[in-house]
Amino acid sequence: MIEFLVHITLRLPHDMPAEQADALRAAELRRGRELVDAGVIKRIWRLPGTTENVGIWAAHDPTELHAVLAGLPLFPWLTVEVTALALHPIEDR
Amino acid sequence: MIEFLVHITLRLPHDMPAEQADALRAAELRRGRELVDAGVIKRIWRLPGTTENVGIWAAHDPTELHAVLAGLPLFPWLTVEVTALALHPIEDR
Amino acid sequence: MIEFLVHITLRLPHDMPAEQADALRAAELRRGRELVDAGVIKRIWRLPGTTENVGIWAAHDPTELHAVLAGLPLFPWLTVEVTALALHPIEDR
Amino acid sequence: MIEFLVHITLRLPHDMPAEQADALRAAELRRGRELVDAGVIKRIWRLPGTTENVGIWAAHDPTELHAVLAGLPLFPWLTVEVTALALHPIEDR
Amino acid sequence: MIEFLVHITLRLPHDMPAEQADALRAAELRRGRELVDAGVIKRIWRLPGTTENVGIWAAHDPTELHAVLAGLPLFPWLTVEVTALALHPIEDR
Amino acid sequence: MIEFLVHITLRLPHDMPAEQADALRAAELRRGRELVDAGVIKRIWRLPGTTENVGIWAAHDPTELHAVLAGLPLFPWLTVEVTALALHPIEDR
Amino acid sequence: MIEFLVHITLRLPHDMPAEQADALRAAELRRGRELVDAGVIKRIWRLPGTTENVGIWAAHDPTELHAVLAGLPLFPWLTVEVTALALHPIEDR
Amino acid sequence: MIEFLVHITLRLPHDMPAEQADALRAAELRRGRELVDAGVIKRIWRLPGTTENVGIWAAHDPTELHAVLAGLPLFPWLTVEVTALALHPIEDR
Amino acid sequence: MIEFLVHITLRLPHDMPAEQADALRAAELRRGRELVDAGVIKRIWRLPGTTENVGIWAAHDPTELHAVLAGLPLFPWLTVEVTALALHPIEDR
Amino acid sequence: MIEFLVHITLRLPHDMPAEQADALRAAELRRGRELVDAGVIKRIWRLPGTTENVGIWAAHDPTELHAVLAGLPLFPWLTVEVTALALHPIEDR
Repeated sequence: MIEFLVHITLRLPHDMPAEQADALRAAELRRGRELVDAGVIKRIWRLPGTTENVGIWAAHDPTELHAVLAGLPLFPWLTVEVTALALHPIEDR
Repeated sequence: MIEFLVHITLRLPHDMPAEQADALRAAELRRGRELVDAGVIKRIWRLPGTTENVGIWAAHDPTELHAVLAGLPLFPWLTVEVTALALHPIEDR
Repeated sequence: MIEFLVHITLRLPHDMPAEQADALRAAELRRGRELVDAGVIKRIWRLPGTTENVGIWAAHDPTELHAVLAGLPLFPWLTVEVTALALHPIEDR
Repeated sequence: MIEFLVHITLRLPHDMPAEQADALRAAELRRGRELVDAGVIKRIWRLPGTTENVGIWAAHDPTELHAVLAGLPLFPWLTVEVTALALHPIEDR
Repeated sequence: MIEFLVHITLRLPHDMPAEQADALRAAELRRGRELVDAGVIKRIWRLPGTTENVGIWAAHDPTELHAVLAGLPLFPWLTVEVTALALHPIEDR
Repeated sequence: MIEFLVHITLRLPHDMPAEQADALRAAELRRGRELVDAGVIKRIWRLPGTTENVGIWAAHDPTELHAVLAGLPLFPWLTVEVTALALHPIEDR
Repeated sequence: MIEFLVHITLRLPHDMPAEQADALRAAELRRGRELVDAGVIKRIWRLPGTTENVGIWAAHDPTELHAVLAGLPLFPWLTVEVTALALHPIEDR
Repeated sequence: MIEFLVHITLRLPHDMPAEQADALRAAELRRGRELVDAGVIKRIWRLPGTTENVGIWAAHDPTELHAVLAGLPLFPWLTVEVTALALHPIEDR
Repeated sequence: MIEFLVHITLRLPHDMPAEQADALRAAELRRGRELVDAGVIKRIWRLPGTTENVGIWAAHDPTELHAVLAGLPLFPWLTVEVTALALHPIEDR
Repeated sequence: MIEFLVHITLRLPHDMPAEQADALRAAELRRGRELVDAGVIKRIWRLPGTTENVGIWAAHDPTELHAVLAGLPLFPWLTVEVTALALHPIEDR
């Protein structure tokens, strides 16, 4: 498995009806927890004061990672930056 | 404990003697492993193709984190970016 | 308590009705003064010519700070940048 | 008095002799504390992991502020960004 | 009096009715000329090819400058950057 | 005559002998005052805390302006940004 | 005559009716050819894959150039960057 | 034939009807495959987590490349960056 | 195998002896051709006018890619940017 | 022939002997005039106040352009940005 640093920014349009936004956020939260349980999201944090998060995601390759990200309920409103990570010698002992 | 995303770039001057650079890198690696063992560095990765790394560090507050970073053997040659991280609702259940 | 430098930019959509904008701004001002009285906002300034401000905020950790910021009446229209601050040796004597 | 947000980055050349660097840093610390006592530096913080600081400085005008900054012992090695600050309505009551 | 370099960018929404835009622009021009006559705007230039201008503004302090800028008829559609200016030794003789 | 906004940053190498730097700065100051007297530099300000200045320069065309700037004693150590300015309708009455 | 490097980006709103967009583009093309015939646009190129162009424009001064640019049929939807050009010694012989 | 690195970002407006977006995406996919078959698109990749792609395109010159790109069904919603590529000595043997 | 877009910038210090620079460049060229023969570098191009190149590299994972890049003879003088690439539906049929 | 917009920045190290710098600049000027005479450099301008120039260069393809640029006497001290240009419909009639 390859680990990726994934930085996600959410921007919902201001004219989206509140119930639609709430339903999307709830679906996103459920899906996020499934991905944690499946070991795809290994850690995730909120950037304070924002609707951004950073996380450590695991996938066999970038194509698999893309499929997971593109399937998120909020994907059409996300800006996603992906950085592939290599093993660091501090951990490699 | 607070978690921080820490992005570190190392730039050694090209005219540093090889034995000095090697000694500094070895000391940095030893110190890094101590910090892993002490739970300060929770995870760390190499950005492929570079002398940069990103890691998840834990400290009681930014002042304690600064003391640890400023004490790294390679500190005079590092550029460090620190981002304080908040708990994400996906993990908070 | 940890101190944070918080830079906030407000952008209201031009088609928001004036009374809604006025009510939001009044609620934000009231909430801001409560946060000053509670010691959460220690200082705050207007960047001249803009709808931006910078302030010094105090919280136990980034998660608490996020909760306060995300609860601001104008939060959906804010862009927020948070920088965690460490003690400086000039003040540490 | 006008308040300014001042962001200072220190970059000492790697080939400066250690005793010179130490003497300059000690002189800067002494001068910094004089400026705190004189009410010119109202607050100052270290950006963790760096040789940067941010502070709130007070002066009658930008010319006076420049004179103080240009007189710092480390001035030739500093990059300084100055932002003039206006009163915020949250504090103006 | 303190002098400020003020860079202003105007962006009117494309769906603003032409008569509203014309009325706002005429009011802005009148107010601009009042500010020139009052010595607040000391010089102002158009950046060619754009709806941006740069000018030299004078005020007792940033709070007074903000009040003037925030009172411009076009203020809701302006992006304003303010730089406080110090006396230069070439002019100080 | 065309007016230009000129932003100049000076960076002297740290290993320049002090007497050379002092002589260059004195020559630059003398030349600057000649340019003020000649009406080429119409106004000039220090950016506080820096070795940068902004000024309003006048020349018949960019080629003439370049000749003046390239003839400054400190030119080899300057970074210069030139913006050609157009008449603004506020002043054009 | 002064030559200017002019970089123009066109962004039409997606909800502009096709016939309006077509009419504006045709008027812009006609006006562009008039400006070529008049010697104002000396050369112009498309940046491939974009709705941007770069060109060499000639005018007596920035104010005259602004008048021409502000009179383009598509001006309200253009972002324009103007760089004043000086004679180069390679050509000056 | 000249090879170009082409970086394409797609941003569909959120209020585009789903059937229109689906039809456009299907047409784009068909056209993309035609361009692969014709040897114009030599390789193309998805940037994971995004609606961006990078590809290696071949054309006789930038004008031909522009014609192909401007003819894409999704062109009005694309941001395209084109970099002309030269032969590298590693391959030139 | 995973494909990566790799952008490499070479900056040799101006005071490196010419024979050392020539030897390093020759070794880099030999190593580059080995990597082409081994299928690690699938394509590589020169960015015209620069000492930069972009290429398509293949590796099992970012750690393997890092090992190859860090082993290049010119590695200490390279700035490397790595982007992990996913399969694009145009090619996936 | 393909036309390219070429932006060149020259930065000579401050410790280069004056006679070497003068000889290089003279050789560059001679070579530049040869390229003008050969129709490779179609136009070239100085950016006022700088050691930068922009020009319109012509070549059969990016590989040929690179060979010309890499052969400039000052090439080791140049930063070069190349933009391939397409025919614009205003000129295409």
